[in-house]
Amino acid sequence: MSKARLEAFSDGVIAIIITIMVLELRPPASAELAGLWHMRQEMCAYTLSFVLIGIYWNNHHLLVSAMRRVTGAVLWANLHLLFWLSLIPFATAWMGRLPTNPIPIAVYGTVLFLDAIAYTILQTTIIGADGRGSELARAVGHDFKGRISLASYAAAIVLAFVNYWFSYALFIFVALLWLVPDRRIASRTAAQ
Amino acid sequence: MSKARLEAFSDGVIAIIITIMVLELRPPASAELAGLWHMRQEMCAYTLSFVLIGIYWNNHHLLVSAMRRVTGAVLWANLHLLFWLSLIPFATAWMGRLPTNPIPIAVYGTVLFLDAIAYTILQTTIIGADGRGSELARAVGHDFKGRISLASYAAAIVLAFVNYWFSYALFIFVALLWLVPDRRIASRTAAQ
Amino acid sequence: MSKARLEAFSDGVIAIIITIMVLELRPPASAELAGLWHMRQEMCAYTLSFVLIGIYWNNHHLLVSAMRRVTGAVLWANLHLLFWLSLIPFATAWMGRLPTNPIPIAVYGTVLFLDAIAYTILQTTIIGADGRGSELARAVGHDFKGRISLASYAAAIVLAFVNYWFSYALFIFVALLWLVPDRRIASRTAAQ
Amino acid sequence: MSKARLEAFSDGVIAIIITIMVLELRPPASAELAGLWHMRQEMCAYTLSFVLIGIYWNNHHLLVSAMRRVTGAVLWANLHLLFWLSLIPFATAWMGRLPTNPIPIAVYGTVLFLDAIAYTILQTTIIGADGRGSELARAVGHDFKGRISLASYAAAIVLAFVNYWFSYALFIFVALLWLVPDRRIASRTAAQ
Repeated sequence: MSKARLEAFSDGVIAIIITIMVLELRPPASAELAGLWHMRQEMCAYTLSFVLIGIYWNNHHLLVSAMRRVTGAVLWANLHLLFWLSLIPFATAWMGRLPTNPIPIAVYGTVLFLDAIAYTILQTTIIGADGRGSELARAVGHDFKGRISLASYAAAIVLAFVNYWFSYALFIFVALLWLVPDRRIASRTAAQ
Repeated sequence: MSKARLEAFSDGVIAIIITIMVLELRPPASAELAGLWHMRQEMCAYTLSFVLIGIYWNNHHLLVSAMRRVTGAVLWANLHLLFWLSLIPFATAWMGRLPTNPIPIAVYGTVLFLDAIAYTILQTTIIGADGRGSELARAVGHDFKGRISLASYAAAIVLAFVNYWFSYALFIFVALLWLVPDRRIASRTAAQ
Repeated sequence: MSKARLEAFSDGVIAIIITIMVLELRPPASAELAGLWHMRQEMCAYTLSFVLIGIYWNNHHLLVSAMRRVTGAVLWANLHLLFWLSLIPFATAWMGRLPTNPIPIAVYGTVLFLDAIAYTILQTTIIGADGRGSELARAVGHDFKGRISLASYAAAIVLAFVNYWFSYALFIFVALLWLVPDRRIASRTAAQ
Repeated sequence: MSKARLEAFSDGVIAIIITIMVLELRPPASAELAGLWHMRQEMCAYTLSFVLIGIYWNNHHLLVSAMRRVTGAVLWANLHLLFWLSLIPFATAWMGRLPTNPIPIAVYGTVLFLDAIAYTILQTTIIGADGRGSELARAVGHDFKGRISLASYAAAIVLAFVNYWFSYALFIFVALLWLVPDRRIASRTAAQ
């Protein structure tokens, strides 16, 4: 019951976050293809953020479906994650408009870094509520992907000031890393 | 469980996509009927897109309710469809504002074409997960409507450069083709 | 199952419609109370539309919970209602900005009239699917409230050109008429 | 059933309210950190409102899950609460832009005060429907936190005209007061 409503609210917020980014894509004033071409960077930023938020939804879904208990701490860790996710549209719009400037790219990386921290906190809080010996704790294990993501985002923030292509490459690398849903949790929950 | 959340998230995203288009309809500055008349093309574009997204929701609903297994591939094929659907408000706003120019009409047709491709991929992925001999595979059959839609959108893109009325006629033709929900799936799922 | 998803999608769309109206309320540029006072008409229009959409949600909820079968016709009648409801934010914004001009008031009345028509069509379609002797058919009966609402909206459209206070009085009258939920359906469904 | 849909609709509206505030955060025109620094007050206002709406969602969730009966009065008390919550993005945007002016701060406090009144009305209505001897009535008890919140908001409105830091301190005080979910209800519903 509590779990169903936590999922419903999270789904609602994530669905809105992933969709309102499209409001930033203003149709060109002219009817020329050049107008679309001019928006290519905003389109790429939108696509990247859509994929990254889709990954969060996907992993959130696996995490919550493996969860056994909803505590107050879990509710707040979940809202904390939603807060940082809600800043992605803002960071996406800034980076999409000024795609070759280090500051907006570093800010985008920072928001992603804080999203990843918030996700890790939620995961830890759920494992704490479920107990160390829980299925989820075993499934998450050493959480290599989570650690690699955090390190990649940290590197992307710094490298934005060296060469912004490094940052974009790291954002895409993390997206590819997670595009395969977390089989460890998935296989275990499927086996239930 | 997994299926319920896939539906809930898709419903949320589709509900937002279908509704935020209305934010593009800016009320006229004057209190004259002429102001509304000036918006007739934007209104028509909104109505067309509302109907087309409504058709996707309807068919998505039948497809998912006939689905037996949610795999990682199904989740991603679903997000892929939602991505292309999320571009409809953008394409609608552009075409609605410049309704007699070939490029915005061709871009609108392209977004619809890619939506139809993404829907076909989702359908194929679900059938792949459920097994060739599944109910859904038999219900979809040769998917004549899907093929006719794809061909119509492709033709609409090209014909936008000849005479845009051909393109509009084809968009409306596809809408009418699907306004009757897919009885093949519906009748079989109803019989369950 | 089908019914649950029809409700979920309708809830999503109505929730978005009722909430995005608030995006029209732009905070005043100055920090004076006069700025708020200047918005009093937009605030009133927002409140009126919020109440009217709330009434639709409430009645929709009672209607669908009494429904026994979801057919293709019911799905489309429902989408048709959502389409006309989705125009309320547009009409509200226009009337709120030009609250003493007959045309925006008449257009607002027309949208409400078409909402009421669409609701009646949905109700008739559901009764048609459930069967004449169904509980819902008996509960709706002669539908006096629905007929009075339609007549009031029609009168409000015409009277906007005579004296707009008549139109506002009629809008408020219909809101008050429905603020009490439809006890006929409610009492019967509660008794199930 | 009725209860599930009341929750689903409330979740949808609250999810939209909490998320559309981010649309007010316009990315800076320049690519400088100074642009972000210039937005610090809007960011703080967004964060404060996010937390306060999160608290409402959390408490609403506990309140409704402990509820036994959905009456017409409960539905309307719930819509009444959603109405006042829907004004938070407006008040947040005004205060965020003019953060040192008493009027926008007092208006923000007034909206929060009215939210708290509406929540109290909903709570009282649910207890009235469930019966005086209900679990919820015992769990809520004297509702000290609710009374302290109301008094704090009232004080914040007045003190905005003395020194606005008092108002901000009171808003943060109420947020901290509620950040711990209402253990009285939570512990009792958990025990069910």
